[in-house]
Amino acid sequence: MRYTVVGTGGIGGLYGGRLVAAGRDVTFLARSDAEALRTDGLHVRSVDGELALAPSSFRVATEAAEVGPVDVAVVAIKTTANAALPRLLGPLVGPHTTVVVLQNGLGVEATADAAAPGAASVAGGMCFVCCMREAPGRIRHIDFGLITMGLHRGDRAHLDELAADLIEAKVEVRTVDDLHRERWRKLLWNIPFNGLSVLLRRGTDELLGDPDGRALVEQVMADIVGGAQACGAGLTLDDAHALVEHTQRMVPYRTSMALDLDARLPLEWEAIHKAAADAAAAAGRPMPTVELLWRSLATLDRANRSYG
Amino acid sequence: MRYTVVGTGGIGGLYGGRLVAAGRDVTFLARSDAEALRTDGLHVRSVDGELALAPSSFRVATEAAEVGPVDVAVVAIKTTANAALPRLLGPLVGPHTTVVVLQNGLGVEATADAAAPGAASVAGGMCFVCCMREAPGRIRHIDFGLITMGLHRGDRAHLDELAADLIEAKVEVRTVDDLHRERWRKLLWNIPFNGLSVLLRRGTDELLGDPDGRALVEQVMADIVGGAQACGAGLTLDDAHALVEHTQRMVPYRTSMALDLDARLPLEWEAIHKAAADAAAAAGRPMPTVELLWRSLATLDRANRSYG
Repeated sequence: MRYTVVGTGGIGGLYGGRLVAAGRDVTFLARSDAEALRTDGLHVRSVDGELALAPSSFRVATEAAEVGPVDVAVVAIKTTANAALPRLLGPLVGPHTTVVVLQNGLGVEATADAAAPGAASVAGGMCFVCCMREAPGRIRHIDFGLITMGLHRGDRAHLDELAADLIEAKVEVRTVDDLHRERWRKLLWNIPFNGLSVLLRRGTDELLGDPDGRALVEQVMADIVGGAQACGAGLTLDDAHALVEHTQRMVPYRTSMALDLDARLPLEWEAIHKAAADAAAAAGRPMPTVELLWRSLATLDRANRSYG
Repeated sequence: MRYTVVGTGGIGGLYGGRLVAAGRDVTFLARSDAEALRTDGLHVRSVDGELALAPSSFRVATEAAEVGPVDVAVVAIKTTANAALPRLLGPLVGPHTTVVVLQNGLGVEATADAAAPGAASVAGGMCFVCCMREAPGRIRHIDFGLITMGLHRGDRAHLDELAADLIEAKVEVRTVDDLHRERWRKLLWNIPFNGLSVLLRRGTDELLGDPDGRALVEQVMADIVGGAQACGAGLTLDDAHALVEHTQRMVPYRTSMALDLDARLPLEWEAIHKAAADAAAAAGRPMPTVELLWRSLATLDRANRSYG
């Protein structure tokens, strides 16, 4: 299968690198990273070992129009750059293309589908991974790696084929029947931990180690469970408790949003917090604590930004 | 009337200083500030002019037991020190004493009354003032000064007498019939502006100048209006809008809680945010955004504290 990976940050670099290492036909669509990739190749420093991929082992394009329709288009840009999706993704999508959206948030598959219509199938993938781009073409993979993948629309066979190919390339993949529910389950973690880690400048361990910090996480999670139920994604308070317990057993963790804040990068509050709050409100069950979080993050983000 | 002022921070120093300057019999109950007051006197650098009050013009005590029952006991410590009230206030209160509580928050009159029972009357005062202690015995008064005062229990004549005496001492005083309602109106300002200024590290002008910051203030205020109504303090959304408009016309303002955070002093979230959230929940109308704020402030406070 011919892959094009849109975005060469931590996610695109790590998973794209695995596909290259497994001998797949991979094109990276890059802009500022293009020259480094063409000159020095792609380097992934991973807990699973190092990958040093020569420039001759993959292709690099700076415009999607140079590439044309592919078998699989992997969306690995941040949601804060989604306004560029028609230009970045449009030319890659033809009637035989599977689009897989490796982004955080709610409604991201629909956004990609609308920006680049006409794909055979659209899937979503939630990456449970800790990785980042250290420099152009240089990826650091610290822990985890599982992609939980489900079909947004189209043919389930396309999803299974893609999952099998990724697994062959040493990517850990789990497929699920109910993508909507899994998106909400991810939100149940991302909304409180990303939001509160930014607002309170605390790691997951510090939040859960403080009695009020833990109560805060549980208050926001209870709000989300109500919203998820109204949206038809049947989460329960047991799911919330299980996530808190699981997080407490994890190694202390700085969330991606806290790292973005420190790096003065855009924060993904719109796709994560606001999209969920809007969906719940539209379903007749507003989530006041999530609304407060997104407005707080938006205010911080605007004051923090050094980006264009 | 014989006054004892409990606490020599910004509030106690400013209003106590005015009483001294007007020739009233004033004792300051102080601990760490006692020596400076006895040696160098009390200095108030105010927008209304400077006061330099010699040590001979007032008394200083370090234990309330040295003072005994007085006509007026002014509670001017921060609510975060309220656990000390039985010791600080108890010996000052006799059957002819009026207690006036110049603190922020909800239920502070009841707390003082329970800590030092048996007063003839208990009043509450909300200070709309910007002042602070710069050093022991050195007070800076930047702007405003009005005390809105109402009766918590006892004889209205005591309140009127006290107000008249303060006005003679050049303190701007307004008395109100419904203290409970005025407390909630003050909360309508303090809860969002104190809380969000700490969480988002923004002044009132920056909060209201950002579209999401302004929406955030309005969201929290709407929550409080609902809670206040359930608690029998009939605020409306019109009150909220009026406060936002008024704040927008104020000079840019760093809230007392933001100043406390920077100075690593205890934050008054318990008397302000938590007391209001608990009262509304007990009245059957929880305020989720206020609960989120108090838990967030409590978490920040615990991590920030350098105090005993």
